[in-house]
Amino acid sequence: MAVPQLTDAERDQALLGLPEWSLRDDKLALVRQFKFRGFGEAFAFMTRVALVAEKRDHHPEWSNVYNRVEITLTTHAAGGLSQRDVDMAAAIDALL
Amino acid sequence: MAVPQLTDAERDQALLGLPEWSLRDDKLALVRQFKFRGFGEAFAFMTRVALVAEKRDHHPEWSNVYNRVEITLTTHAAGGLSQRDVDMAAAIDALL
Repeated sequence: MAVPQLTDAERDQALLGLPEWSLRDDKLALVRQFKFRGFGEAFAFMTRVALVAEKRDHHPEWSNVYNRVEITLTTHAAGGLSQRDVDMAAAIDALL
Repeated sequence: MAVPQLTDAERDQALLGLPEWSLRDDKLALVRQFKFRGFGEAFAFMTRVALVAEKRDHHPEWSNVYNRVEITLTTHAAGGLSQRDVDMAAAIDALL
């Protein structure tokens, strides 16, 4: 099931509303780094993100090292960024 | 607080008991990839690993993409592999 990729203009507009996120070098993904007070807080955040991801059926590519979490959002069915990534980024921001 | 690094002989002996784990190219970490039936199962596993990590106060470097999890174990206080990594790898294997 194909998902429409954002146009460059849509992408740039969306980024204005997501100041904490940056565009990956290939412009096909949104990336944000998070830093917490420790592992427990970082993993608690990851658990909340996991629930949001399941609810939306849109899953991040992410990594964790102790108190740091890096989240990458992209839409494989779009071959790059879609509105789903923008919505997911906003939903993640809303958790903080 | 320094932690002793495993000798090459200790490391090679430990790897014999961890057939699913491989040595990172720089020989300073253990790495294993896991594949699950879906995101829910992968994240449930990560939650169990997180609890083990907190209990042992020894935290993995790890990443997740949908149903796949990659775990890297190394001991910063040892500048490489220590017995803590070997014990943690065995504890993770015991979860499966």
